[in-house]
Parts: sequence; structure tokens; C-alpha cells
Amino acid sequence: MDCKERYIYRFGASVVDGDLSMHTLLGGKGAGLAEMTRLKIPVPPGFTIGTNACRYYLQHGKLPSGFARELTLALRWLENAARRTFNDADNPLLVSVRSGGAVSMPGMLDTILNIGLTRESIDGLARQNNGVQSLALDSYRRLLQMFGTVVLHVPQKEFDVILTKVHIEEKTNSASELPPKTLLKIICQFGHAIESSAGRKFPDNASEQLDLAINAVFESWGNPRAVYYRGMNGIPDEMGTAVTVQAMVFGNAGVDSGTGVGFTRNPSTGEPEIFGEYLDNAQGEDIVAGTRTPVPIAALAASMPSIYNQLSTIVRRLEEHYRDVQDFEFTVERGKLFLLQTRAAKRSALAAVRIAVDMARDGLITRREAISRIPAASIMDIMAAQLDFSAGTPPSIATGISASPGAAVGRIALTAERAVLTAAEPGADPVILVRQETMAEDIHGMDVAIGFLTAHGGATSHAAVVARGMGKCCITGAQTVVVDEAANLVRIGEVVLNEGDWISLDACTGRVFSGQLPMRPITEREPALDQLLQWAIEQNTLTVRANADTPDDARRAIAAEACGIGLCRTEHMFFTPERLPHVRSMILAGTVDERKAALSALLPMQQHDFECLFRAMAPWPVTVRLLDPPLHEFLPALDDVRAERALAALADSSEEVARLDHLIERIRALAEVNPMMGHRGCRLSISYPEILEMQVTAILQAAITVQAEDGLNVVPEIMVPLVATAEEMRWLRGRIDTVAMEVFARSGNSIPYQVGAMIELPRAVVAAGAIAEHVSFVSFGTNDLTQMTYGFSRDDASKFLESYLKENILAVDPFTTLDQEGVGTLMALGIAHLRAAKPNIKIGVCGEHAGDPTSIQFFALLGVDYISCSPARIPVAHLAAAQASVTAHNITDLPATIRSGRKGVDFPPNSRRKFDPRRNGYSCQPPALIPEGI
Amino acid sequence: MDCKERYIYRFGASVVDGDLSMHTLLGGKGAGLAEMTRLKIPVPPGFTIGTNACRYYLQHGKLPSGFARELTLALRWLENAARRTFNDADNPLLVSVRSGGAVSMPGMLDTILNIGLTRESIDGLARQNNGVQSLALDSYRRLLQMFGTVVLHVPQKEFDVILTKVHIEEKTNSASELPPKTLLKIICQFGHAIESSAGRKFPDNASEQLDLAINAVFESWGNPRAVYYRGMNGIPDEMGTAVTVQAMVFGNAGVDSGTGVGFTRNPSTGEPEIFGEYLDNAQGEDIVAGTRTPVPIAALAASMPSIYNQLSTIVRRLEEHYRDVQDFEFTVERGKLFLLQTRAAKRSALAAVRIAVDMARDGLITRREAISRIPAASIMDIMAAQLDFSAGTPPSIATGISASPGAAVGRIALTAERAVLTAAEPGADPVILVRQETMAEDIHGMDVAIGFLTAHGGATSHAAVVARGMGKCCITGAQTVVVDEAANLVRIGEVVLNEGDWISLDACTGRVFSGQLPMRPITEREPALDQLLQWAIEQNTLTVRANADTPDDARRAIAAEACGIGLCRTEHMFFTPERLPHVRSMILAGTVDERKAALSALLPMQQHDFECLFRAMAPWPVTVRLLDPPLHEFLPALDDVRAERALAALADSSEEVARLDHLIERIRALAEVNPMMGHRGCRLSISYPEILEMQVTAILQAAITVQAEDGLNVVPEIMVPLVATAEEMRWLRGRIDTVAMEVFARSGNSIPYQVGAMIELPRAVVAAGAIAEHVSFVSFGTNDLTQMTYGFSRDDASKFLESYLKENILAVDPFTTLDQEGVGTLMALGIAHLRAAKPNIKIGVCGEHAGDPTSIQFFALLGVDYISCSPARIPVAHLAAAQASVTAHNITDLPATIRSGRKGVDFPPNSRRKFDPRRNGYSCQPPALIPEGI
Repeated sequence: MDCKERYIYRFGASVVDGDLSMHTLLGGKGAGLAEMTRLKIPVPPGFTIGTNACRYYLQHGKLPSGFARELTLALRWLENAARRTFNDADNPLLVSVRSGGAVSMPGMLDTILNIGLTRESIDGLARQNNGVQSLALDSYRRLLQMFGTVVLHVPQKEFDVILTKVHIEEKTNSASELPPKTLLKIICQFGHAIESSAGRKFPDNASEQLDLAINAVFESWGNPRAVYYRGMNGIPDEMGTAVTVQAMVFGNAGVDSGTGVGFTRNPSTGEPEIFGEYLDNAQGEDIVAGTRTPVPIAALAASMPSIYNQLSTIVRRLEEHYRDVQDFEFTVERGKLFLLQTRAAKRSALAAVRIAVDMARDGLITRREAISRIPAASIMDIMAAQLDFSAGTPPSIATGISASPGAAVGRIALTAERAVLTAAEPGADPVILVRQETMAEDIHGMDVAIGFLTAHGGATSHAAVVARGMGKCCITGAQTVVVDEAANLVRIGEVVLNEGDWISLDACTGRVFSGQLPMRPITEREPALDQLLQWAIEQNTLTVRANADTPDDARRAIAAEACGIGLCRTEHMFFTPERLPHVRSMILAGTVDERKAALSALLPMQQHDFECLFRAMAPWPVTVRLLDPPLHEFLPALDDVRAERALAALADSSEEVARLDHLIERIRALAEVNPMMGHRGCRLSISYPEILEMQVTAILQAAITVQAEDGLNVVPEIMVPLVATAEEMRWLRGRIDTVAMEVFARSGNSIPYQVGAMIELPRAVVAAGAIAEHVSFVSFGTNDLTQMTYGFSRDDASKFLESYLKENILAVDPFTTLDQEGVGTLMALGIAHLRAAKPNIKIGVCGEHAGDPTSIQFFALLGVDYISCSPARIPVAHLAAAQASVTAHNITDLPATIRSGRKGVDFPPNSRRKFDPRRNGYSCQPPALIPEGI
Repeated sequence: MDCKERYIYRFGASVVDGDLSMHTLLGGKGAGLAEMTRLKIPVPPGFTIGTNACRYYLQHGKLPSGFARELTLALRWLENAARRTFNDADNPLLVSVRSGGAVSMPGMLDTILNIGLTRESIDGLARQNNGVQSLALDSYRRLLQMFGTVVLHVPQKEFDVILTKVHIEEKTNSASELPPKTLLKIICQFGHAIESSAGRKFPDNASEQLDLAINAVFESWGNPRAVYYRGMNGIPDEMGTAVTVQAMVFGNAGVDSGTGVGFTRNPSTGEPEIFGEYLDNAQGEDIVAGTRTPVPIAALAASMPSIYNQLSTIVRRLEEHYRDVQDFEFTVERGKLFLLQTRAAKRSALAAVRIAVDMARDGLITRREAISRIPAASIMDIMAAQLDFSAGTPPSIATGISASPGAAVGRIALTAERAVLTAAEPGADPVILVRQETMAEDIHGMDVAIGFLTAHGGATSHAAVVARGMGKCCITGAQTVVVDEAANLVRIGEVVLNEGDWISLDACTGRVFSGQLPMRPITEREPALDQLLQWAIEQNTLTVRANADTPDDARRAIAAEACGIGLCRTEHMFFTPERLPHVRSMILAGTVDERKAALSALLPMQQHDFECLFRAMAPWPVTVRLLDPPLHEFLPALDDVRAERALAALADSSEEVARLDHLIERIRALAEVNPMMGHRGCRLSISYPEILEMQVTAILQAAITVQAEDGLNVVPEIMVPLVATAEEMRWLRGRIDTVAMEVFARSGNSIPYQVGAMIELPRAVVAAGAIAEHVSFVSFGTNDLTQMTYGFSRDDASKFLESYLKENILAVDPFTTLDQEGVGTLMALGIAHLRAAKPNIKIGVCGEHAGDPTSIQFFALLGVDYISCSPARIPVAHLAAAQASVTAHNITDLPATIRSGRKGVDFPPNSRRKFDPRRNGYSCQPPALIPEGI
């Protein structure tokens, strides 16, 4: 029954009917004011009309029957609390009427101030406020304007025209500067404007104003922009808005009044101090207008010590209660402090980390809460280099995909060769490699460049992957960029840049700038971040490894507290200038013996690579992936060889011509229509077992050498890429074990080693159970698995992914964040097969997704044992994985197909799965991160 | 206990201990002789020593204890049955000792004839055989030779040397021509050879011969070639062999004796007549030696009517009993007929069909048995053209993959353009297109060529797919072929062929011949095959549709009794010379309006295509797939355009240079690293909805036109290729329906249409349930699904598939026969999702596998509604699908993952699922194939 339902809830002056938990009924604002009242924080008294009244109004076109009486009673109480009287000329009670839904819809609903002010009570208002006439007149002017537009639907521009004219005449900028006479003139003109536009006079009666205002706010729920906003954000139309009616307070009532905005801590630096601004004799909009300069809140300690002390107490109380840093608004009305609003403060990434760590240290929040509060990806911003836009932001010349964060300023190089030459000059400026797209053969140029810009490719293209691996900044898919290698220039729309010109990349936003922009100095490693990460590592049940190919990578991985290398790509070792000739001889070999000869030249180099890597990582495990890319990636470009041949022909060098003809023939023979699905991965090892034999020999000899020479415990894991069937793995396992036996026999020494398979083909997912029988571990290569599952080539997909994201056919790029429904379902299927076949099999993920927080959360829920990402992403991975551990019990938003497959996956709530080098496995004891002896 | 176990089983002379079902114990030969005895067919009497004795012997190195006594009893019985005496000089009993396992191991085990013959009994043997002395002497000579090699391990060449010397001296070729004196000399020399080589004399005692021979046969089970053969064929080593001891009969005992081999029906033509050869006074090896010419068995009707009548009766009895055509051996010994062996006859594909049909007509077998007996793929041989090798087979110059069966003789063309030009000349010879590999742009050249030869690609490369679609012969992956377009020649090893030279392809075996070989005339359509196919169609529960792009294809499909078109590839319609310019304008368009203009030029042509197709197929449904290949396939090759640009630059044609520069830029911009996973399929429709709009408009306007003008019931089905997610399908379905509404509104007429999705990505398999909500049907594109599941590009996989097949890592090419474990499991998963979401959804398969019998069987078990294959494969598909229906109850060899998903799939045993045009669906009533009114 309507008559029994309560619609109005009071707050302020020691009376409070609601609390924070009632935000569905009272809206965020109303519930917040109630909560502040409960905390004995001074707020201007008022009451909130619940969303139930709104719903009734929208449904019936009128307010419920008992409402009027409830409103009268609430007003009577408010008059008492505020010690003013509604509809009274001498001591008028003015109120604000504000909308406020349960879900914030910023700027979408309406607010009216100064309700209750009439021509008759203007003088009374002035008297209340130290006799300031202009305050009262300007308040009335504002009432006319807001009431006119919101309630009577007078177009805003009717008022603007009048105000602008006056400002021109009076040479003023703001209404608060106007003398009373002028304000009176404006009031008069506003009244005419309302009458002629709305066809009725402004209601100069407080009760009528209030009733109309409440109805207008309810009706504003249905205005087109609000409806659109709700549609966009999935907010149900039937929620309705609450209306808060609150006594007005005036910060512009003289020098003992003022207004301020503040943060309980510094939102940029996180420092634990009240931070904000205060302007005396002013209202909120005066701070915004910027015509007068506010003072720091800290200055109040001297000028208004009592107010400052009150504020300090309130700030402590707010943080203790809300357990988070708050952003608050306050007004001082004739020496009396009122808080108007408080809410969780937006803060910089750095501040977020410092605040969370400080609060956890102070015991205000738990360490797990501290971990949960930091958006994992945001810590990249703390660690990455940035351009310095403090002197202004020039127009960007191109925009691409933010493929690897950071910033770089350097000179353009258009080829890897040029990059190497330029960088080798004494005192050379930094180099930025700009290419249509990068390929494996560009790796030496990428090594010396400080950043990459490519016209093609997405967030998982070659350039992106390499950049993240190297921790360098990279922008890909800048589609307007056209590289003209022949002319040694880059065209970007109308802009033409020559090789050697300066260019600046802001990879955090994907913007490209011409010229040499300043960089922000990279600060020292942030101690709060280190602390947070340490907590994250303690909390984490997922082992984090690094994708690392070099001892440098390995050292960075160790420094970031990676528990081993989860992916060492051996192909990168083949691209160095002194090796490429041997690699090419191997590829061009006409017979198995010729191929073996070329491989035996590579063997000592490869073995040296592994020795360095093992030394850097011991005793952590190192997973070495056997050669993966198709062989043609190691051959020069056909056009280059053709050009060389033409020169040789001109020089009558018939021997050279014959050699180049053979090369051309081999390049053609090895060319593939779809190299991603071609002769690569373990298919190479099956066609050319000599390559596998060389690599396995190098891995195991290196391990034996390091163990013998350095006394280090080396744990090599040999990983076979692109496995499709159990038969392949059986065959390869046989070969690997045979080679191992030979190496052990030759050296008279042996070491334990593991053999694993990459699961990156849907075929392998289906066969995972059978594959498990031949391996000790598997690692999901989610890049390739995404490519094959979708049939999306990551080198080509940027061409259509744009339409897909624009049309909302895909919510996110599946190469950036794992597609849980599709690829994730296959992973879950594969893991179910794996665990069924071999419960203790070690399962990892080494695709790019292993550095993406959302994907990491998902991997944790799937119950993988480890993830392996680029060294630069390890802190992010630690944090995201820790967050997954914290929220592991909440699996309701997993796709149903996966949830049902998760039986038996269990997360110990407070333990950390640790690598145990003695058994080359994982345990849940909580020992120190780096085992003793390191 | 050994003493209770029976080892010896008798047969012949109305006594028989075994039967056919005991072949594990008695071996195939022993069981067959027992079975013939049961059928009262005269066989020389004998007994079989079971495999249990062999196993005992191999395990213990000696025969079981009771064995000797059992052998003695069996011999006593045999002496009685044969009316001769073992170890008797006057009337000796001679026996053959033959091995015979349960599984046939041809030529792997040993046989010894004439056991029981001694120096003393030679005269007795001559007396038994019309006094022919040389018969007896030669029998002894053979005994020495066989016993010497098999039992005493004397090298064969010891005997060969002696024989050769005698033949040279006597100027003879065969031992049967030698006079007694010479035979005696040979016997003497053979005796010396045995003594010096084996270190012992030949045992001139019947019992000793028999014991040693039995042991030798048992031991031959372990000889290296037998072990190797078993390893190759997966025959368990512990099976052991049986030994059959059988009384010798002699066909060389005079003119009333002889020997023959026969078939109960003609194995080449299938004609129902005794077929075979008879040679009087001869043994089996004389027929093989070919020194005398045998007569047809039919001639016995005159020369030996009684024998002929006996044979006729036996033949009827054999066929009635074995219910199949038999291949038998027989001997006449002095007017008495003995059958020596019978087994199912090998027969030609044509004979197999005729025999099965005749037998079914005669009621000997059921129609379902007739269907089951024909290897479905073999009927392609009956229908395909063949080279005529009757005048001898020249050496082939290359060998490749038999990608599309048949044969072709024509002149070489190296480019599509040349093929078109050559074929257009008046009185032109047929053309064979020889290319490194074919691409979509070669389609007009493939249209005029009669066969294709490519150096690259496998059984599912572009050339192979197009060839099968066109029913033309094709050899792919002939790796030694090098096409040098620049020099207008082909190099194959040392052979060089010029464009225009004659070449002959035998695509059934993959052989390539230089020059113009004769063709076998293609016979009229075989009535027995038509009958068999009619029965198959009646039996079939799977609907068979055709992949057809042209009205010609459609007519061939109708003639082959296809129930509609399951895949019309619209891209083939874009490659004709008058359309390509419009297609290219569409691709090169800078704005949506330009693109729409180009498309509107294509619209009437495309609409005309569909009108023709609908007219040809009505009222059967036509599934039109929207544009699938990436747009760059329609652009010219970059090298060609560069050459053109160079010419234009020379000619100072700056306008043309600019045009070509733009073209080069677009070709580069559209180029893809992995086009198979690139901007193709429905991704085109999402990026360029104008293309989809044109195609849907053309389809629906064509359908309305044909319905209105011809009064035909047109059932267009619009199929969207390469769908990955339900969101794509929802978006596309919306577009298609919008276009349909516009077409219907414009024309004032409407027709029912269906929208479907191709499931060819693993992502779509996972999402199949959600996709089902937006479609009426789906079709599995198993080519692409195989590519994506394995990550095998079918254009590139031939490079490594060879190693895979050689190393037994793959049993078959997964592009030829569906990989049930991997791709099949995904299909089963998808079908389970589809049926769960929409039980009546129509599910088809339109990949190449839809023409492969093994795969079709599997599809039937998965419960798909229809398969769609190239018109040429439709008879194969009908037959294979019918065989699947016949064996549908037997699903035990399905992968477990699939079996469990098959719940609810039910095959009505004797009904046929028929298309019902009235409801555009399927029913199980058995109406006529083509509905009334056609």
C-alpha cells in the first residue's frame, strides 16, 4: 500500500534515516550524505526523496498520495535544523534540489539551486549573509536561470544572450563581479524571457518552486541524453532517480566564508597530506572560473586554524571509514564548516600504488586489498619512459596502436642495416626504426633502435612482440605511414620525413610527433611499487617466468623476480651477422651431409648461447624452444638477390651469377603462400632431424658444461613448437632422447632434462591427452592458438579488426586479451585432457597474453602452473596473478563450458606455488623467492 | 595338458575334422581345404597340423609329446584315403608339405613337394603315372632341390648352376623337356651338392623327410623376411603357422592329366562364365613357364566333357557357398578332377560392379551386400578416361600426386593466357596446362585445358580442387617439374619440353609421359553401375548435393542425381575477362560511392549467373556462398604490373604511369603475409558491406525473376563463409535481411530464402550453438577446418607431408581423408552444440572430404543431413553414403570423444532422407528421386 511506503529520508543535524547501504533507494549522493551524517561530519541538513517516489511518478504521472504530507513534515524538520523558514521573507530557507541515481550518470540529470528564494525574500537572504546584497541578487538571478531552463524548458541561449550583452556593456566576465543595479536589470530581463518563452511567469512562491523542481528532476530521468546514456551503459530504465533537497550554504557570504575542493591525500604523488584549494568569499563555480587564485588548503592552518583542524579530523575519519583516499568538497559559511560531498578520489598510477602501500602499512587496508586496488596494467605507466608535454602538446602526425608502452625520441632509420650503421657511428643519436612492418631478419636493427614504428600489424605483430620482449617502445598499425625505402623517406599524409630526421613516439597513446620532443626524466625505481610487487609475489599462486633469449634478458628477468625462463626463442640467435652465413649454408645445403657440416659450425655458437643463459638463470629452469620459423625467414629478400645478380652479370662474374641463381631458386622453392601454416615448428625437425639434433646437442652439452665448470644446478627444458599430434611428439621425443643418450655417452656425464610440447594448434588441444604421454610439460602458445582458432593472421588482421571493433563485433582485440569464449574454451578442453591423462603435468602459457592482466586472471582460473611473459611485463604479471589468487573463489563469470571443466582445480587461499629446484617442480611451501645459495 | 590337445585335422575322401571357421588354428589354406571337403568338392586328401603345434615347437624347440602318435595315425588314414603307402617302393604315397598362417603372408613361408619319394620308389611313382619315367625322375629332382634349400639350407644357386650348365649342354629351357638320362645325371649332381654344402646326405627315407620338413616349415615362421613382413603388416609374432600335409596329384601323368587355374566368373569383364586356362599333361609351373600354350577352360566342354561338367557343378556350388566370385586351382590326374585351392577372386573395378549387380539380381546376395562390396572410390576408374598401355608402357618422365583421376593427352601450355589462345585456334589440339602451381586467376585457362600438371601442391591444392570440380584429370606435386615461363619451357630432370609439345598424363597413377600416348576409348555408361547407384540412392540416408558454379555444372549434378547445389562459389564468376575490370575497379575504388558504382556494373551479370543456375536446378535448393577469397586474388601479379609500368615510362605515358603506380600501391597495400588467414570470407562483407549487398540483391532478384518468368519454385540459400563468432553472424544476418526487405519492397514480390553459415574455423565450432541462433543451416567447410585445426596450409603442406607419411606420423593426407581424431572431434563437438541449440538445423559438409568415401562414412555417423561434392564425385558419394547407411549400426571404431557425443543420432534402417521442396526441408518418405513435374 502506498500509504505505508516511506519516501523521504532525512540527514544532518544529528538526525539520519538512511545509510550507505541504501544507495539503490537514496542514490549515491543521498546515501553518501546520510553516511557522512552518521560519521558526525557536518553537512548542510536536508532530506532525500527515494527512487521509489520517482518510479511511482514515472508510472502514474503523479506523486503517491501520502507523499505531500511526508514532504511537509520533512520541510518542517529541515526548517528547524537549518533554523530558517521556507516561504519566509525575513529568514528564508533556501534549498538545492539535486538528482542522484544509484549508478552515477555524470551530467545527465539536472540540479536546481536556491529553491525557496523569491523577490520578497531577497533582502532576508542578504541579511543572513552579512548583508551582502549582490549575493542575494545573484542567487535569485541563478534561480531564475536554472529553474527557467530545467523546469520551464526555456532555451539556455535566451539567458546567455542577455548575460553576454551585459558583460560587453559592463566590461565584466563573471556575474559575481556585477553591481546590484546591473543584477536587478538582468533579473528583470530574465523574468521577461521566461514569460515570453515559457508562456508563464516565474513562480515567485517557495512551495510551488519546490514541487515543480522535484517533478522536473523526476522527468529528467526520461530526457533523451539520459536514456541514451543508460542504453550505452546498460543501466536499467526502471531504476529511477532519487532527489536530494538540502539547505543551501553560501561560501560567498564574506571573508569568514569560502569554498574548497580537496583530497585526503595527494592524488598525483600519493603523499599522505591534505591536498586541495580554498578560495575565500566564493562559491564553487568561482574556483572553476579561475578569475581569482585559490590558496592551498594547507594555508588554512595559519589563516583559519579551527577550520583546518576540523578538516584534518574529518579527513582522518573519512579515510578510516571509507578505507580509501577521498575527493571532497566543502564550504565555510560564516565560520562554519560544511562538507558537501565525498567520494573515492581518482589518482595517478603512481599515487595509487603509494596510497595502497601506505594504507596497508598503516593497517587501514589489508595487503590483499592493496594488491586488488591497482589496475595491473597501470604500473607499466610508472615504469615506462614518457614524453614531457608540460610545455604543450604539438599536433601528432600519425596515430597507431600502442603496442609496447613508453616513449622514444630519435632519428629515423628505414632499414635494419641503416639502423645498425647509424647507431655504430661515434656519438650517434638514438635511432627509431620505421618500417612498413618488421620481420625476423630485422632483428639486428631492432637491437640497436630505441623504438619502432610500423605502418602495418597489430598489438601482436612481429614488431610488437619483439618490442615488448626488449622492453622498447613501439607503435604499430599507423596506417597513414608509407615507407618509401627506395627514396629513403617516409610519407605520412602530406608530411614527408627523410631518413635521419628526428621523430618522437608516445607509445602510451600511440601518437607520433615530428621532431625532437623533450622526455620526462625517468625516476628511480619506486619503493612503494617494489613493496606492492613483493606482496603480490607472496600472494601469487601462479609461477611467473620470463620469455628471454639472451643473458641480458635473463638478468632482467631475475631482477624482476621471474622464476625461470618459460620461452627462449632460439631463432633470434640465428640472425646475428656472424651466424647468418652458416644458417644460410645449412638451408641451401643440397645433401644431408652438407647440412650437417653447416650445422656443426653453428653448434659451438649455439652451445655458447645456452651456456651464458644457463649461467645467468641457474638454478631456475630454462625452457628452450627448438627452431620455430620457416627457413625462408633466414634467406635474403628475393628482390635484393635479383639486384645483386644483375650487378654480378654486369661484372661478368659467372661464378657469382651461378651462386645467386641457385640462391634465387632456393628462395623460390622455400617461398610459402601462408608461412604461418607452413613448413615451420616441429615440422622442420621432422623434415630435417639434423637441426633438432644440433640444437638438442647444444642445449645438453651447455648444461653439462655449466654444471661441471660452475657447479650450478642447470635445469634444461626442451620445448617442441607447433605440435599437432601425439604421433609427432612420440617421434620427436624418441629423437631427442636418442641425441641425449649420445651426448651423455660422449661426455661421460649426464643431467636431468625435461621435454615438453607447445600447445598452439586446435589439433593439439584435441590430442592433448595423448600428447601428454610423451612430455613432462606443455606450454600454451596463445598467439598461434588465437591465430588458428580464429583463422586470423596477426600480421594481416589489423586490416579488418578495425571494422570489427568499430562495429562492436569484437569487444577487444583477441591478440591483446585472450578470447575466453573461443580460445579459452579450447584451452580449458586441452587442460582437462592433460590433467586427465597426467595429473601432475606442468602446464604453462607463453603467448603474449601471459602479460595481459585480464588474460592472466583467466589463466589462473584455468589452473595453469605458470605463465611466461616478456621481462618488462613481469611486474604486471606478478600483480595480475596475485589479484587472480585473491579473487580465485569468484568464478561465476567464466563461460559455462569452462566452468564445468574446472572440477578439481583448487587454489590454496594463502599459499604460494613455489618452484623447487631440487625436484624441478612446484611446491606450495612459502620459502624465499630466490633459493639459498644465490 | 598336451596329451589332450588335438594337433592334426584331416580332410578329403569324405572325412573332415575342420571347417572354415577354424582358420586361426588351421590357417587359411587348411581351413579352406576342410571347407571344400564339407562341400563335397574333390580335393586330394590330407591333414593340417594346427598352429598350436607350431607355437609349442617355437616355444619348446620340439614338438609336443603326443604329436608323433597323432601324426602316425593321420598318415595311416591318409594312406588309406589315397590308396598308397608311405615309405613304400612299389606304390609310394607322396605328399606336399605347405605352410599356411591364419593371415595370408604370400611368398613368405615355405613349401616342399614330393615328400616321401626315395631312390627306391622312383620306379613305383612312374608306374603309378602311366609309366612316365621322366615324371618320376623330375619329381625326385625337385624334391632334392626344395628339400635341399628349405630344410638343409643349401644355397639355391648351387642347384641353379648345375641346371643352367645342363640346359646349355642340352639346349633346353625347362627341366620337363629333359630326357631321363640327363635327369639322372642332375639327381646325382644335386646329391653331391647337398652333401658338400649341408654336410649330410639327403635323407632317402620318407618318414625322416616328413619330420624334417614339418620342423623346417615351423622354423620358417622365424626367418627374417617373414619377421619383417609381419612387422610391416602388424601380424602378431605369436600366431604361428599351420602345416598342411596333402597327397600329391600329378597333372603331368599323360594326356588324360592336366592342370588349370580358373575364375567362377570373368574377373576383367564380370561376365558370368567359367574363365581360365587348362594345360594337359602339365603341372602348375608349366602354365607359368609359358613354353606351351594353354587352352581356355571352355574348350574342356568338348575335349573332356565329364571334367567340364564336374567343374561347372563345382563352380556353382562354390559361388552359392561363398556368395562371391572365386579364383580356383585344379588338377586332373588320370581323368580324376581335384580342386587344390579356392579363394575370393581379385577383379577389375568394372567386373566388381557387374558381378555384384548380377549376384544381387540372382538373389545370391542382397542389394545391400552388393553396395557394400564395391570400394566406392573404385567406380571413378570405371567412369574415367584411361591411357591405353596395351602396346607397352613407356618410361614416365615425372610422377606426382593423383589429384583428380582420368587421363589426358595434349599440348603443353605454360600460362592460362597461352592455353586460351591455343585452344581458340581453329582445329586446335587439346591443351594441358602445366604450371608451378595454379591460382584463382588461372581459372579461364583451366576452363579450356583438358588436364593440369603442377609442380607444387597436394591433393587439395587449388589445381586439384578445380580439376575435381570440373571433372578433369590433374596431377599435382610433381616435384621434379620446373616451369620456366620466361624461356617458354618445362624442365623435368634432364628432359626439356617446349610449350606446344605433346604430353600425356595418367592421373590415376600420377605418371607423366612425354609425347602423345593413345587413349582407351571411353565405353558407354555401364548399365550395371547405373543399377548399383540406383540401389545406393535408395539405400542412402544422406542427401548428396553438388558443388557447382555454372549451369553446366548444375546439369551434370542433376544428371548424377544430386539433390541440389550445396556450394556455389561466386568468386569463380568474377574471373571472366569481361568482369575482371569491374571487379578491379571495385577493389581500387577510393570511396564507398566509387565502389558501389563498380558493383552496380557487376550486379546484372551476377544476377544473370544466378538466374541461369536457378533455372537449371529448380526446384532443388541452391546454396550460394558469398564472396570468399581475399581481394588481392583479383589483382594482377605485381611483377606484371611493374613490367607494364616500365613500358609505360619508356613510352612517356605519364597518365598510364600514374595509373599503374596507383595499382602497384593498392596491390602492395592489399598483399597479405598469410592470405588464408587474412581479409577474406565474411570479413570482406563486414569491411565492405556493399559487396554483400550487391550479391544478396543479385541472388534474390534472380530468384524472384525465375519464379515469376518460369513459374519455377526457387529455393535460394545464402551462405556466409568463414564465420568465427555469433556476433559476426548476427551482424551479417541483419544486413542480409535488410537487403532482402529492400529487394522485396522494390520488386513488389518476395520469396522464402534461408541464411546459413560455413563452419570452417575452430572458433566457429566452439561458438556453433550461438551461431545457430542466427541461421537456418550450416555447412562444414572441412578443407579450411583441416587447415586451421592442423595449422597446415594446403598450398604449402606438400613440402612436409611427404616426410610425415614416410615416417608414419600421419597415416593419410588429412586433406584427402578427414582426420577423425582431430578435425572429426571438433565437428562432433560443433554438431552437438548445433543440435542442442536448434534440433532441426540443417547440417551439411561441403569440403573436399565430401567426395571421399572414408570421410563420407564418418559424416554419416556424425549425423549430418547432407554432403556436397564436385559433380564428378557424386556417384562415389552416393555409393559411400549408402555403404555408411548399411553399416551405420557399427560405430565401435569411432573415437571415444565422438561416440559419446552421438546420442540421439538415429539412422532409419531402410528409409531414405529426401528433400521435400514444398517445405525446403528433408523427409524420410521414399518418393521418386526427382519430384513430380520435372
